[in-house]
Amino acid sequence: MSSSQELLYLNREQVAAVGPTMAEIIAAVEKGFVELGSGRVEMPPKPGIHPGEGENNFIHAMPAYIPAMRSAGVKWVSGFPGNQAKGLPYITGLLILNDPDTGIPLAVMDCTWITAMRTGAASAISARHLARPESSKIGLLACGVQGHTNLEAMKALFPLKKVMAYDTSAEQSRKLPAFGASLGLDVEIVDDPRRAVTGCDIVVTSGPILKKPHATIQAGWLDEGAFASLVDFDSYWSRDALRQADKWTTDHLGQYCFYRDRLGYFQQCPEVYAELGELVTGKKPGRQKPGERTFAANLGLAVDDMAVAPLVFGRAVEEKIGTWVTL
Amino acid sequence: MSSSQELLYLNREQVAAVGPTMAEIIAAVEKGFVELGSGRVEMPPKPGIHPGEGENNFIHAMPAYIPAMRSAGVKWVSGFPGNQAKGLPYITGLLILNDPDTGIPLAVMDCTWITAMRTGAASAISARHLARPESSKIGLLACGVQGHTNLEAMKALFPLKKVMAYDTSAEQSRKLPAFGASLGLDVEIVDDPRRAVTGCDIVVTSGPILKKPHATIQAGWLDEGAFASLVDFDSYWSRDALRQADKWTTDHLGQYCFYRDRLGYFQQCPEVYAELGELVTGKKPGRQKPGERTFAANLGLAVDDMAVAPLVFGRAVEEKIGTWVTL
Repeated sequence: MSSSQELLYLNREQVAAVGPTMAEIIAAVEKGFVELGSGRVEMPPKPGIHPGEGENNFIHAMPAYIPAMRSAGVKWVSGFPGNQAKGLPYITGLLILNDPDTGIPLAVMDCTWITAMRTGAASAISARHLARPESSKIGLLACGVQGHTNLEAMKALFPLKKVMAYDTSAEQSRKLPAFGASLGLDVEIVDDPRRAVTGCDIVVTSGPILKKPHATIQAGWLDEGAFASLVDFDSYWSRDALRQADKWTTDHLGQYCFYRDRLGYFQQCPEVYAELGELVTGKKPGRQKPGERTFAANLGLAVDDMAVAPLVFGRAVEEKIGTWVTL
Repeated sequence: MSSSQELLYLNREQVAAVGPTMAEIIAAVEKGFVELGSGRVEMPPKPGIHPGEGENNFIHAMPAYIPAMRSAGVKWVSGFPGNQAKGLPYITGLLILNDPDTGIPLAVMDCTWITAMRTGAASAISARHLARPESSKIGLLACGVQGHTNLEAMKALFPLKKVMAYDTSAEQSRKLPAFGASLGLDVEIVDDPRRAVTGCDIVVTSGPILKKPHATIQAGWLDEGAFASLVDFDSYWSRDALRQADKWTTDHLGQYCFYRDRLGYFQQCPEVYAELGELVTGKKPGRQKPGERTFAANLGLAVDDMAVAPLVFGRAVEEKIGTWVTL
């Protein structure tokens, strides 16, 4: 069934059913960043098209080749903000995994589960190098998909006990207490966003990504010694709050500069101290003092996805999940 | 079955079975070039990865959005020259077609049939503007897949009668006489490449693409008034032969300059007179005198593929061909 002339298709539910654990995904993404930080990943800039009426609609091609993981392929992922009003998902897309020896497609899989999980994993890998190891209290600002997967990833690496969760929509935070309980965490839903920042060791913001930040979080809210992961770029933070950063990092300097200089995000943000690949390879130290305020502004890269895809594919084959079709 | 949460998968045989005619494909690709030439296509540069041992291995992402054709998607196509020795196809890949209103994938289809047909179609569209309308004798240098589809496309637009066919491999040209006969054409296999050039109204070269041209075709071989389509770039032509060009065209100036200035193809070739989009929109005239020697060096663009994909998808749905899978 799995000859080179057959292709495995995995839909959204099947990818989730294959479900590598978050710890496995963190290990895979970390390996991807070791390779990236060692200059051994081919990852060209991601081009995009922008169909339809919505000015924020996009479909991006995210190709990468990670020789050490025998992973070659592309994620073709769309974000159409207007979909939610139609009862359709904001993010949809497919990932194609190829045989690196022949270029022949091995698998087509829904990319939404992988996208959600690997984004949380990347935050946690940044935190491993930038947060205090004893971090036990986490603040989440926005409790959507990314709030959940970032929480799960941080729980895999830190002795978390308490979650302070804020969202502008009560509907969004509704499922978080049960999810937190399933991880052994006590979740407190708060109405004041400051309570999800001040007193927290780790803060994750994951609201909508905006070119003009809503800048809810003010200077003085983030404690000394805390770490923040900015899944929604700089949208949640006032410039004065960001000026308190001791270390400001990203997952890819080239793409960060593109977003800043060409697309208009990350205006007046601190200078980039390190890329995630430099932290995981030890080329630059992470946290050096207990009192540092540290930040990760990770953009999400093709290497994240392509580090996870072979794991999903291999396990789906083993577990006989998915649909084989003829090429 | 065809709700927005289902995806149609079409394999190689199914795409061919859906099979729009070459005339329909020419019409679709021409419409794509009208849109491109009018500045109404979004087609970012194609990024690639280069897995495996072979130095010429590639996998390219080719995204495009053609609003007027309601076509948005990407072709992810690989070329691994070493595959042929393993009994595997040189070119493989998939095309993803998305709903331009929601970004949601509508179909995943094998891209090899479309790639072969649209490349012939683009040659023929160039010829419509650059060859003499009464062209009746065609020379083919290399008789592989592209020799066949270019012949079929030229036959759709010109009163062809005679084919002079040359290939370095007798095996490659073995199937051409029967294929030509099926189109009502008399095919003569020749051992001397000059006989597939001199005396021909239209010449199509489609051997391997080489950075250092083998330059088989010499100055004086191509008749006055003839048109040549260079599917294999400039590989078949001596510089002296190319210097005899009166009009030298391409399908995309930006990508042509990238191939010339960054990748090292098309060295010492004539200046580009026009893009194909300028010819089909009438912004520049094609052939103006019976004696002109005219050339098309088309690179193959995402707009070619994405112009054809909705035609294949729509007809597959009508004809109930392919496999529906859940997203």
